[in-house]
Amino acid sequence: MEAKFWNRHTETMPRAKLDALHLHRLQALCHYVYERSPFFRKKFDAARLKPGDIRTLEDFKRKVPITDKSEFIDQQLANPPYGPTLAMPEELIVHHCETSGTTGKPLAIPYTMYDTVRYGESWIYGMWALGIRPTDTFYFAFGWGNFAGFWSTYWAARRIGCRVISGGGLDTKGHINAIMRMKPTVLISTPTFALRMAAVASEMGVDVSKSSIKFTYHAGEPGPTALPAMREQIERAWGARAGELLGIAEVDAFAPGCPVGDGVHVNEMNNFTWSMDPNTGKEVAEGEIGENIITSYSNSAQPLLNYRSHDLVRRRMSCSCGRTWAKLEGAVLGRTDFMVTVRGTNVYQTAVENLIGEIPEVSNSYELVLTREEDNDAMTVKFEPVRTVNPDRWDDLARLMSDKIHKALHVRLKCEPVPPDTLPRYELKTKRIIDQRPKEFRRALDR
Amino acid sequence: MEAKFWNRHTETMPRAKLDALHLHRLQALCHYVYERSPFFRKKFDAARLKPGDIRTLEDFKRKVPITDKSEFIDQQLANPPYGPTLAMPEELIVHHCETSGTTGKPLAIPYTMYDTVRYGESWIYGMWALGIRPTDTFYFAFGWGNFAGFWSTYWAARRIGCRVISGGGLDTKGHINAIMRMKPTVLISTPTFALRMAAVASEMGVDVSKSSIKFTYHAGEPGPTALPAMREQIERAWGARAGELLGIAEVDAFAPGCPVGDGVHVNEMNNFTWSMDPNTGKEVAEGEIGENIITSYSNSAQPLLNYRSHDLVRRRMSCSCGRTWAKLEGAVLGRTDFMVTVRGTNVYQTAVENLIGEIPEVSNSYELVLTREEDNDAMTVKFEPVRTVNPDRWDDLARLMSDKIHKALHVRLKCEPVPPDTLPRYELKTKRIIDQRPKEFRRALDR
Repeated sequence: MEAKFWNRHTETMPRAKLDALHLHRLQALCHYVYERSPFFRKKFDAARLKPGDIRTLEDFKRKVPITDKSEFIDQQLANPPYGPTLAMPEELIVHHCETSGTTGKPLAIPYTMYDTVRYGESWIYGMWALGIRPTDTFYFAFGWGNFAGFWSTYWAARRIGCRVISGGGLDTKGHINAIMRMKPTVLISTPTFALRMAAVASEMGVDVSKSSIKFTYHAGEPGPTALPAMREQIERAWGARAGELLGIAEVDAFAPGCPVGDGVHVNEMNNFTWSMDPNTGKEVAEGEIGENIITSYSNSAQPLLNYRSHDLVRRRMSCSCGRTWAKLEGAVLGRTDFMVTVRGTNVYQTAVENLIGEIPEVSNSYELVLTREEDNDAMTVKFEPVRTVNPDRWDDLARLMSDKIHKALHVRLKCEPVPPDTLPRYELKTKRIIDQRPKEFRRALDR
Repeated sequence: MEAKFWNRHTETMPRAKLDALHLHRLQALCHYVYERSPFFRKKFDAARLKPGDIRTLEDFKRKVPITDKSEFIDQQLANPPYGPTLAMPEELIVHHCETSGTTGKPLAIPYTMYDTVRYGESWIYGMWALGIRPTDTFYFAFGWGNFAGFWSTYWAARRIGCRVISGGGLDTKGHINAIMRMKPTVLISTPTFALRMAAVASEMGVDVSKSSIKFTYHAGEPGPTALPAMREQIERAWGARAGELLGIAEVDAFAPGCPVGDGVHVNEMNNFTWSMDPNTGKEVAEGEIGENIITSYSNSAQPLLNYRSHDLVRRRMSCSCGRTWAKLEGAVLGRTDFMVTVRGTNVYQTAVENLIGEIPEVSNSYELVLTREEDNDAMTVKFEPVRTVNPDRWDDLARLMSDKIHKALHVRLKCEPVPPDTLPRYELKTKRIIDQRPKEFRRALDR
């Protein structure tokens, strides 16, 4: 039988042993950042905390101050490029990435050679679990910008030994032609771009479900693991198994997809995580939804301790796949910073997106428009019926969608059809909340 | 004193020792391809040649059949992707590139992990000689297509330990802004794109000669080593030292620039080369112009023996920089396949290009239009005066250019001005010969 695990020893390590390893590493990390990162030394000092004070995992979670991306950006802006967040001599940085800056100023992300190698390997656990092997050929339908997701996937391909074909700056038709000609077996892209490619191929008279692609693997936005409807669409369109990795550019490719297909596993060799109630700061129990707080061992250049991911997750400590690594069921269930309370109900973008994806007569493009009505936030869902639907039926679709959302989320949202292909397409990030509230009402849960 | 050499031992190895090493490696290579490459076994058999017959370097040059790119492409088209040119199991290929196909069908180029590592290191000799060090930061103004030039430069950056910033699919202004913000010290681009960026920066009010860039390094088309006028333009525009690498995608980054600045050195650790008279097939003497014939040790996947480069070079066996590796003075002096005989005179595209580059009032864009007049090939040079030149003076420029070409090349060509910015811009390859001859007169020296 073929091995299910990239590294059985680490992926099935008993919890007690994993925890002992985490404690050992976290203690070492606290010493490391206290010595080398002026940013963390200041935070530790302000909290009257010494590295030696961390004697248990509980100590770490409770005593080490929570860090937010905005703190890093502020430090970097004052002292570019990295400021006091850098724990290594700048000469040892071998790759420089940035976040896309969709939520404000871009965050600069330095990697040492060690970081790039570990970051690359982090991808592989999920790829291996899906069935990808060194004999496979990756096709990168990517523009190779300055984003960590693109480059770390390449580092993964190098580590696993797969063949690489770069699509580079080709347009969508160019990608389709390249795939049909060069016959790769794995498609690497954002999930929405995989669907876009399939749609364009169909217009070209090419059936990609009969192509050489056996696997698709995704990151960059919620994909097949977070959104079952999207998995079904991608797998049907490409005649392939679809996988997903949950990563954060400044952290790690930290949670590769589970082969059972209903979530991702925290890579506990490279990361220590726990779930926090974003309102109280306290840890939430297994099975409860909380914000994923991450400490990574794979960023020696710019360490992150108790880092707010803003991802809402439901953590389980066991999984039918046999991995002992914490499972995040459904991957990311919502975002603390993309959450809005509508008439007393918390509405997460991802939850709405998933419900839209279940309706085959509408496209994957949508916008959530926020307004303020009678002292309450209100949300309108703009959606696109597909071309084959008669405009007479658009209002029926709106009613169907509104009912669906009401049933699932217990809140009634206005759903408004717009003509096909009029909403913007996003290649990289799905940020589809249009905030039209008066300025004083614009806030996220945590800001 | 700082080391001038990336690897003093190999770069200054005495000729006798280098030759002994070449013979040893060539003998091993002949055995390797005979055992593993059906393509070469067939060629050897047809020539009644056994690997054991190669007892001297002369044997190798004279007995091993010359190979041309077209043979490879034919084999690959009949049996995609690599056909019988592949000497390794396909599973061991870790990167797949293609030539741009400007001269016909693209050539598929497979690399093993070993090939990519060696290919990457080949770049470094010239970078190091120019002054680039591991503390430098590379900015890649590249689209990361499926071309070897882009990827092997990245492998070089990994090997040398420099920091990498990817410009990816940004537009020209985006690249300028990224450079000014992230402060890289080395610009990696085609030479014409370096000039284009400087021109756009100037329009934006940005003086890149005062930017963080200390070095520019180029490949993909004739650059600062082949064209002194271009070196001067790039170095002045960027306030930097400009270097160049002469590479061939399917061979190796085989000839890094010499620090003396007047040519490139064959990387004799990875390649064995000699100069052939393209008409007779005989070796030409040191100092004579001949076609560069290359055998590379860095492509274990798809070996090339006595491979026609179509580059015309003048070889010297010593250099004032102290390297013993063969020097190609002026890099590529012409192309056997881009050479035209006009009224009894051989005219090389590169020679004309260099003369155009010496006239500051004209842009780097030009086209050479070939026609047939009175039983002779005729060539018209279409050129662009820069915007600041009054159209009244265009005809004077045409006369100046025609005189310059006549004086240097002993042939009078018609020079024809066209309005600024009307000729096509090429990001990657300069193929600017427009052949309007009747079909029966279209030929190159070697085809």
